[in-house]
Amino acid sequence: MHLVRVIVIAFAVASAGLGAHDAACAQADPLPSWNASPAKDAIVNFVARVTNESGKDFVAPAERVAVFDNDGTLWAEQPVYFQVEFLVARVKALAPQHPDWETKEPFASLLKGDLKGVAASGEAGIAALMAATHAGMTTDEFAATVSDWIGTAKHPKSGRLYTEMVYQPMLELLAYLRANRFKTYIVSGGGIEFMRPWTERVYGIPPEQVVGSTGGLKLEMRETGPVIVKLPELVLNDDKAGKPVGIQRHIGRRPIAAFGNSDGDLQMLQWTCSAPGARLCLYVHHTDAEREWAYDRTSHIGMLDKGLDEAAAKGWTVVDMKQDWNAVFSQN
Amino acid sequence: MHLVRVIVIAFAVASAGLGAHDAACAQADPLPSWNASPAKDAIVNFVARVTNESGKDFVAPAERVAVFDNDGTLWAEQPVYFQVEFLVARVKALAPQHPDWETKEPFASLLKGDLKGVAASGEAGIAALMAATHAGMTTDEFAATVSDWIGTAKHPKSGRLYTEMVYQPMLELLAYLRANRFKTYIVSGGGIEFMRPWTERVYGIPPEQVVGSTGGLKLEMRETGPVIVKLPELVLNDDKAGKPVGIQRHIGRRPIAAFGNSDGDLQMLQWTCSAPGARLCLYVHHTDAEREWAYDRTSHIGMLDKGLDEAAAKGWTVVDMKQDWNAVFSQN
Repeated sequence: MHLVRVIVIAFAVASAGLGAHDAACAQADPLPSWNASPAKDAIVNFVARVTNESGKDFVAPAERVAVFDNDGTLWAEQPVYFQVEFLVARVKALAPQHPDWETKEPFASLLKGDLKGVAASGEAGIAALMAATHAGMTTDEFAATVSDWIGTAKHPKSGRLYTEMVYQPMLELLAYLRANRFKTYIVSGGGIEFMRPWTERVYGIPPEQVVGSTGGLKLEMRETGPVIVKLPELVLNDDKAGKPVGIQRHIGRRPIAAFGNSDGDLQMLQWTCSAPGARLCLYVHHTDAEREWAYDRTSHIGMLDKGLDEAAAKGWTVVDMKQDWNAVFSQN
Repeated sequence: MHLVRVIVIAFAVASAGLGAHDAACAQADPLPSWNASPAKDAIVNFVARVTNESGKDFVAPAERVAVFDNDGTLWAEQPVYFQVEFLVARVKALAPQHPDWETKEPFASLLKGDLKGVAASGEAGIAALMAATHAGMTTDEFAATVSDWIGTAKHPKSGRLYTEMVYQPMLELLAYLRANRFKTYIVSGGGIEFMRPWTERVYGIPPEQVVGSTGGLKLEMRETGPVIVKLPELVLNDDKAGKPVGIQRHIGRRPIAAFGNSDGDLQMLQWTCSAPGARLCLYVHHTDAEREWAYDRTSHIGMLDKGLDEAAAKGWTVVDMKQDWNAVFSQN
């Protein structure tokens, strides 16, 4: 930018309390991976309304709470939830210590790669897999295991790290909201302790702003000092009607903006957008079979059926991934 | 302050990135209600160590987590926990709608002012009282009830509002830590939804930084829209070993500073101070029968027995309220 132009901007905005650097940045598009679209307009207009101190829709910064689903909203979720890949990897890694798993279901099916056999074991089978891989260790040990896995494991289709399967437009959206003094939270059906080890680095979302499905915890006094041990029982199933519950439990304020991609997020969006005042509810619609995946009403993962109807009825924003995003995955 | 002195300071600290105003303020005692004492030294030295970027004990701002018990640490807890006074007031207010309470325990004893009779009803009796006063309404309704009560109810001994029974030295400590980029949390045995409606105004602690005993919640779709209803079951008893569990569940980081006053806080202090690196664990010891109350090893409320021994053994900081504080209650 020409120096004279910078100086002109600096003078122009001095009374607004902005530095020349801020002003120069404010000229740039904060959402460059978003094509001009109704979705982009909805986001930018909403932020303008709630941050305009003299407008009727002004919201104090402390109340600018934005909640994001994770799977399918901030990162991909196909062909299976990434936490399921973690679970499979853990069963394989732990199998040598459990020779009985060779004949014990659902471990036997899983070790043979027979996912139908795993599914046949039902909820009790899934609970056994969760207990074996997500409980019985300290929170510190579990965090280290997650960090090791996520630092090296690769997505089966793309061959990229899972943390490279995050959506560039959503990273820009997170940063844009935070620059406008929003507090950004994850509210995911995924495990809270599975997400926390990497969300700060990948999304800029610290562990205390991660809400997820939550297992029991127990303090144990050991010779080396106190530890917190993960228990198999589920304290919060942070999906569907559990999402507003998780929001209330952790945040204690109703969000003014909510972002999801499936029927599992429907109640979170309803909870957010049924209150008076300016609100933004947005669904990411997976419409891009070439760059990502295309799925909605009949998908086994991330089904978006009732949500599409409700979005149409309520005038919520729906992102057409193929049309509205000029980049999908982060290049970092 | 003389203008020349201000300018000298401004130049002296320019390289440190501070403005003249910050430098001038840094001259003033940030803890004026604290007398010179080992406790005050311990606080100031700890903050200096963890904020010194070139020192070995430096802690990044994101990791500067400080947790505070509430009852007996931030506000008084005698002659009974203030939430018990709220419960009693609610039973009295609701009694006309429940004529059966005149003969049904523990309501009958409570309405007659017979606290021994209430105690005789045991845990089941307390659970019945909690269910009648803390469950069955929406979170919004409960918050409004708490706000109404706390805005008008008076402490039985002092005749002051309960929110005026907060400790001035602790308000200064909260502000001092936040000025040094700590994130301050409440971690209390008190109810999370009982504290949230007023902690931001009184302590500067927003709802999302309040951890407390937690009841079940349920989303309900009503004709007027979704609401969250409080359930009678207890999801977290945020006392003793429950405090580190609450910290992990809500914050997901181990604190570097913890403040309490009773054996109910012991595990929180152990969890905080058993990790390597600079740590501050501090007990407020109620030693001032004239300005407040004096109690410790044999008190039914806020018993501090094992905690005193552990503090001596581990070299934790113990505040002698009578000696160390030149003011007790906030004058706001």
